[in-house]
Amino acid sequence: MTAASSAPLRFRRLLLTGAAGGLGRQLRQRLKAYCDVLRLSDIADLGAAAPGEELVPARLEDRAAVLALLDGVDGVVHLGGVSVEAPFEPILAANIVGVYHLYEAARLNGLKRVVFASSNHVTGYYRQDEVIDAQAPLRPDGLYGVSKAFGENLSRFYFDRYGIETVCLRIGSSFPEPKDRRMLATWMSFDDLERLVMASLTAPVVGHTIVYGTSDNTTRWYDNRCARHLGFRPLDSSEPFRAAVEARQPTLDHQDPAVIYQGGAFVRTGPFE
Amino acid sequence: MTAASSAPLRFRRLLLTGAAGGLGRQLRQRLKAYCDVLRLSDIADLGAAAPGEELVPARLEDRAAVLALLDGVDGVVHLGGVSVEAPFEPILAANIVGVYHLYEAARLNGLKRVVFASSNHVTGYYRQDEVIDAQAPLRPDGLYGVSKAFGENLSRFYFDRYGIETVCLRIGSSFPEPKDRRMLATWMSFDDLERLVMASLTAPVVGHTIVYGTSDNTTRWYDNRCARHLGFRPLDSSEPFRAAVEARQPTLDHQDPAVIYQGGAFVRTGPFE
Amino acid sequence: MTAASSAPLRFRRLLLTGAAGGLGRQLRQRLKAYCDVLRLSDIADLGAAAPGEELVPARLEDRAAVLALLDGVDGVVHLGGVSVEAPFEPILAANIVGVYHLYEAARLNGLKRVVFASSNHVTGYYRQDEVIDAQAPLRPDGLYGVSKAFGENLSRFYFDRYGIETVCLRIGSSFPEPKDRRMLATWMSFDDLERLVMASLTAPVVGHTIVYGTSDNTTRWYDNRCARHLGFRPLDSSEPFRAAVEARQPTLDHQDPAVIYQGGAFVRTGPFE
Amino acid sequence: MTAASSAPLRFRRLLLTGAAGGLGRQLRQRLKAYCDVLRLSDIADLGAAAPGEELVPARLEDRAAVLALLDGVDGVVHLGGVSVEAPFEPILAANIVGVYHLYEAARLNGLKRVVFASSNHVTGYYRQDEVIDAQAPLRPDGLYGVSKAFGENLSRFYFDRYGIETVCLRIGSSFPEPKDRRMLATWMSFDDLERLVMASLTAPVVGHTIVYGTSDNTTRWYDNRCARHLGFRPLDSSEPFRAAVEARQPTLDHQDPAVIYQGGAFVRTGPFE
Amino acid sequence: MTAASSAPLRFRRLLLTGAAGGLGRQLRQRLKAYCDVLRLSDIADLGAAAPGEELVPARLEDRAAVLALLDGVDGVVHLGGVSVEAPFEPILAANIVGVYHLYEAARLNGLKRVVFASSNHVTGYYRQDEVIDAQAPLRPDGLYGVSKAFGENLSRFYFDRYGIETVCLRIGSSFPEPKDRRMLATWMSFDDLERLVMASLTAPVVGHTIVYGTSDNTTRWYDNRCARHLGFRPLDSSEPFRAAVEARQPTLDHQDPAVIYQGGAFVRTGPFE
Amino acid sequence: MTAASSAPLRFRRLLLTGAAGGLGRQLRQRLKAYCDVLRLSDIADLGAAAPGEELVPARLEDRAAVLALLDGVDGVVHLGGVSVEAPFEPILAANIVGVYHLYEAARLNGLKRVVFASSNHVTGYYRQDEVIDAQAPLRPDGLYGVSKAFGENLSRFYFDRYGIETVCLRIGSSFPEPKDRRMLATWMSFDDLERLVMASLTAPVVGHTIVYGTSDNTTRWYDNRCARHLGFRPLDSSEPFRAAVEARQPTLDHQDPAVIYQGGAFVRTGPFE
Repeated sequence: MTAASSAPLRFRRLLLTGAAGGLGRQLRQRLKAYCDVLRLSDIADLGAAAPGEELVPARLEDRAAVLALLDGVDGVVHLGGVSVEAPFEPILAANIVGVYHLYEAARLNGLKRVVFASSNHVTGYYRQDEVIDAQAPLRPDGLYGVSKAFGENLSRFYFDRYGIETVCLRIGSSFPEPKDRRMLATWMSFDDLERLVMASLTAPVVGHTIVYGTSDNTTRWYDNRCARHLGFRPLDSSEPFRAAVEARQPTLDHQDPAVIYQGGAFVRTGPFE
Repeated sequence: MTAASSAPLRFRRLLLTGAAGGLGRQLRQRLKAYCDVLRLSDIADLGAAAPGEELVPARLEDRAAVLALLDGVDGVVHLGGVSVEAPFEPILAANIVGVYHLYEAARLNGLKRVVFASSNHVTGYYRQDEVIDAQAPLRPDGLYGVSKAFGENLSRFYFDRYGIETVCLRIGSSFPEPKDRRMLATWMSFDDLERLVMASLTAPVVGHTIVYGTSDNTTRWYDNRCARHLGFRPLDSSEPFRAAVEARQPTLDHQDPAVIYQGGAFVRTGPFE
Repeated sequence: MTAASSAPLRFRRLLLTGAAGGLGRQLRQRLKAYCDVLRLSDIADLGAAAPGEELVPARLEDRAAVLALLDGVDGVVHLGGVSVEAPFEPILAANIVGVYHLYEAARLNGLKRVVFASSNHVTGYYRQDEVIDAQAPLRPDGLYGVSKAFGENLSRFYFDRYGIETVCLRIGSSFPEPKDRRMLATWMSFDDLERLVMASLTAPVVGHTIVYGTSDNTTRWYDNRCARHLGFRPLDSSEPFRAAVEARQPTLDHQDPAVIYQGGAFVRTGPFE
Repeated sequence: MTAASSAPLRFRRLLLTGAAGGLGRQLRQRLKAYCDVLRLSDIADLGAAAPGEELVPARLEDRAAVLALLDGVDGVVHLGGVSVEAPFEPILAANIVGVYHLYEAARLNGLKRVVFASSNHVTGYYRQDEVIDAQAPLRPDGLYGVSKAFGENLSRFYFDRYGIETVCLRIGSSFPEPKDRRMLATWMSFDDLERLVMASLTAPVVGHTIVYGTSDNTTRWYDNRCARHLGFRPLDSSEPFRAAVEARQPTLDHQDPAVIYQGGAFVRTGPFE
Repeated sequence: MTAASSAPLRFRRLLLTGAAGGLGRQLRQRLKAYCDVLRLSDIADLGAAAPGEELVPARLEDRAAVLALLDGVDGVVHLGGVSVEAPFEPILAANIVGVYHLYEAARLNGLKRVVFASSNHVTGYYRQDEVIDAQAPLRPDGLYGVSKAFGENLSRFYFDRYGIETVCLRIGSSFPEPKDRRMLATWMSFDDLERLVMASLTAPVVGHTIVYGTSDNTTRWYDNRCARHLGFRPLDSSEPFRAAVEARQPTLDHQDPAVIYQGGAFVRTGPFE
Repeated sequence: MTAASSAPLRFRRLLLTGAAGGLGRQLRQRLKAYCDVLRLSDIADLGAAAPGEELVPARLEDRAAVLALLDGVDGVVHLGGVSVEAPFEPILAANIVGVYHLYEAARLNGLKRVVFASSNHVTGYYRQDEVIDAQAPLRPDGLYGVSKAFGENLSRFYFDRYGIETVCLRIGSSFPEPKDRRMLATWMSFDDLERLVMASLTAPVVGHTIVYGTSDNTTRWYDNRCARHLGFRPLDSSEPFRAAVEARQPTLDHQDPAVIYQGGAFVRTGPFE
């Protein structure tokens, strides 16, 4: 049986892009346990390679660099690109052109699956009193959200045409702890993030799956029932932080779009001219 | 920041109507912790005011009284009115005219949110082998259920027109313990009732939310997935009471509408002529 | 076979309430053909009885009068009551108390079916770019709409409990011709109104059916697919009036709630204090 | 109150068919606690009767034998018949003709409820990256699955016509422990099987209920929210076995239909000519 | 290009089973125009073969005969079998065993598509005030309906496993004209039947399609929107016959299940013992 | 009343992009009747300006040019960009960067509504035996389809954030007549195209509406019931062309993805490297 015809539980060479970012640094420590070699990429400084790591800096808008980046890997966790609301040009370069390069590289290298960091901001214009699932029509809350929606649609196409599977992780807010009342709904612990990434990498069949990434919070806007086949069950919760968060933010301005919509402050960022 | 533009976590003056009733007496003890002053109202005797309490008896069909009742409050938990199947006249006075007065008072006093005790009896004519959610068309099981449906619709209008938020609590059966086999499905502990009321009062955005109020029972007819944004998670269950309940009621008559329909005995109460 | 056990195609005595109103005057002329006696009721002047007519004025809030009104009839078309946004008191009297009296009278007289004029205003707070069906949650646009929702819920109860069937007609705008651009969506010709009423009276089984009443207009907000069992197919259309209507109203103010919401001007009527 | 008008919690004589099979042997030990007499049937050897047991071997295709088999029982758990993919003739005899005999016997003996072992193979042609519920259109994965679909439809008819209730258990994989990665999704412990069977036998009202039978596995393809009224809550999980299972089956062939579809190896069994 | 890889518009040898029945005699006249040879089969007398016809009588329960029957054909319209409520044995033989033989013969002969006469009786226990589509859970109204459900499920399996396409025609009531008020909803003219059969035979891709077969009646219980890809548009209607039908059947007994349920008289046929 | 606060029926200056393309040339002739000045843009030769026309060539990837292009217009029909499957670079330039420029220009120029030519290829990977509506998750069939999905998502954002309305036209196949059997489903006559464009420009409220653009074909894959508020009713049909089309293409290869999927030949175009 060749690698091409199997879904591995342990990877020979796993690629983590965006490895210098907030979540990247977390996963860098954690993913090493599941692979022989962890290839790390970013445009920011990655520091020195630890044993079992290899550093391959690459700009996502550089097609040749991305082709090389995926050469020889049997799994990809793609966190790379712009991860906040920003002017169109950098989003275009990294999140649109770059994601296209990533999927072309997956196709040309015969890769079978990608774990793609999408974002809750693809549906950020739903209200905070709505509960949605992965089939709700997209309502992105900014150019960043629109670019993540592009990645979801592009990966759907690569599955339908080429059979390359993708799990789109609509990550909420992954920080050491929830910072504000919005994050009581959107927070995901680093441990739950690791669980979600590993379930996405190793579930037997994922096709093109969309899953929201949060912990098992009591307050929730997202319904993941369409993604139970992944085998992701969050074990943490924002609830132990509730009292502290509420004490810091005892009132909310109901006229503020950031309070009304799920996207939070993203819905009032920009425009950038 | 003015009260008008914020959702408080702690209330200066919280109004509890129906405070002399079964659930009212429970909440009277519990809500005091969340406010400076707890204003209590009923048409039945409320006893003496404890520290931090103020007693404001009012008939709901008395418009001026209800206007005064809501004056100066920044939160309302409305349990008042008829809470069982009854002839039309008292239901009309308290649950239809009275609820209209309540919302007019909220509008005129600039109140931003109401927690409204609706009832599972707005959908009592679903069968006990059906599981429904808050979007199921209403099927009230009596005049009481019809009047609670009126309150739900009226509060929807006050949200759409005036922005006054409401959480409609379709309360099941809140008693010290489940009394019969129907209550294995519908029972809500007083602790869970408190959790539900407080989540409804303090969730950042509720718009017009409908939620069923039961504990985390193993037998369930209601699906609250549309209301997870409230942050209500019941922690109790009817299950520990199952053996005792079943021992008391070992057989059921399948010809009895009260066994077939979710509304239980309500579906065979009346008509009142 | 007794009358009680059959749905007639021709009525011995058909009752039309609200017979002095705009639609009542239309139906008065038209329903005579389907019954031996047409009983007409209103609180306004009904003029003189034509052959085959009998005039029975009654106030809907007068229980005894309504009981007498339904005595001996084998079909009811209930247009009576307040049909525009108004202060709460007259709506309460006619559309809430009155409708309760109507259904009690139906129950006590053994009537099997009611055709009830509900209104598009039970869902008037949907936007004009939404298409809804009879299962959409109610969003009434005023006290009038709330009162019609009460009638729908009450009649549901009378079907579930007593087996009295009702067709709720959510009538759009029935006038000689559409008057403005909103009516291009909501208009129903008088001929289509007659078709709808007769289908509702004579369809073999209706249970509790909700149907929107409009002609076969090109612009539509309502989807009647759940009511095809009625056998109602509109044959007219607002389209021939489009050019004239658009010429009279060439621009619309997009800030105006009456332009945004399906309820039109109702959404900015009131409050009445 | 007669037995015919009540749903018992304890049975006088409970019938278990297929009692010599894998699940039958488990339930034989467990069901005795809930009845005075446990009648056991199979075509394979049942060994000796223990106290409180009675052995009634019967071929399901023998109408008279099945009529006698159900005589005097007040509850049936029907596991009998072919339980794997097989040629059409034995499936026809046991699972089609036999199930017809079972329901005729229930009707003629006045039995009020049947617990029927259907199978996950009635929907085996859904993909392993899909999550379905009991309302998903059937997609059987073989003749066995088609025969179980027959049983589901036949029992629906016996409920609609004769009021005989059925719970259709779409059992996943009930073994001492999950054997392969597919069973991480489909596994049901014997304790959870017992819970499911007893909930199905004793829930007050079941009408015609379809429920998937698995433990509370982290990886799931089935959504049982339409069956919560049964009061079945699995307490076990395949998760503790995950590491061992994955170690034994570290890779999967993505070209293999048994990996792609929920039915597993059933989707490549047969045809039998 | 071989026949096996194409969907023909004109058939070399088209098989019509049940050719001596009511609909069979109609289609015998009409299908000749679309094929070189029309093979006709039945167990009843087929008379003499006209030019271009060949007569191949066969019992459906005779596997070898059915294998021979499908030899050399490139299209099948399967009307054969029992077409009314009947005792189980003949239904079993023709509609269960027989349909299995038909699909085995299709598989072994390399046939690519079957047009299968299912029936509205697979959903006959829906009420006459409900409108359903092809995804509504089945509610057969008798053994005949259960057997047609078997055919639908079996053909679904043959599509998922072997790629043999089927269009399941849930035929209403195809007669020269509607005979009673139920048929105002269920009637299909012979011309519309021909249109439906030909659309089903020749649409480019049908997979496994379920379609209700009625004319464009004003009264309808069925919603075919999931089958528009077939290209079937009925051109006739029961409406011109309404007055005559209603005159013959002016009242209906609302206690009669045949009036309440879509299956009509089928819901009170049997049981056969 | 200012232009900004009204939806006009007649435009002062209407912009048509892509005016030199196949559909552009059709609309150039037709839109003149609805505006004082028709501004035409393309990168291909537009010939000479007719009276009432003004020619403003612009490259969509040129931000300044697009800003100027929308200056002074009160309506936009955006057909510009790549309209077939193509390498990524031109699609990126025109359909991604270009559409972003278009919406920025709309925002900066205070334009209130855009009619945007999306494409049926945003859902091209649905099968030809499926019927979908505008809420079906996207399944683009190529880079072109992915780019049109980008435009739909971007325009959703501009509506949610800035209130700029868009009608996304998922145009099928608009040609003088249907060329092949796929177009029997997807064809839209030029007259129906004009009706659709004008309904989209002038409907009172469109928010963000998605509509499939085909004629009233008998064979259909698309359900436009969510867009009836537009007032678009196609009057033409592919049916009169059926015989000729079928005669030219009597067989289809069922192994060909272009036969199986709605996207037709697009699903086998590319990849471009």
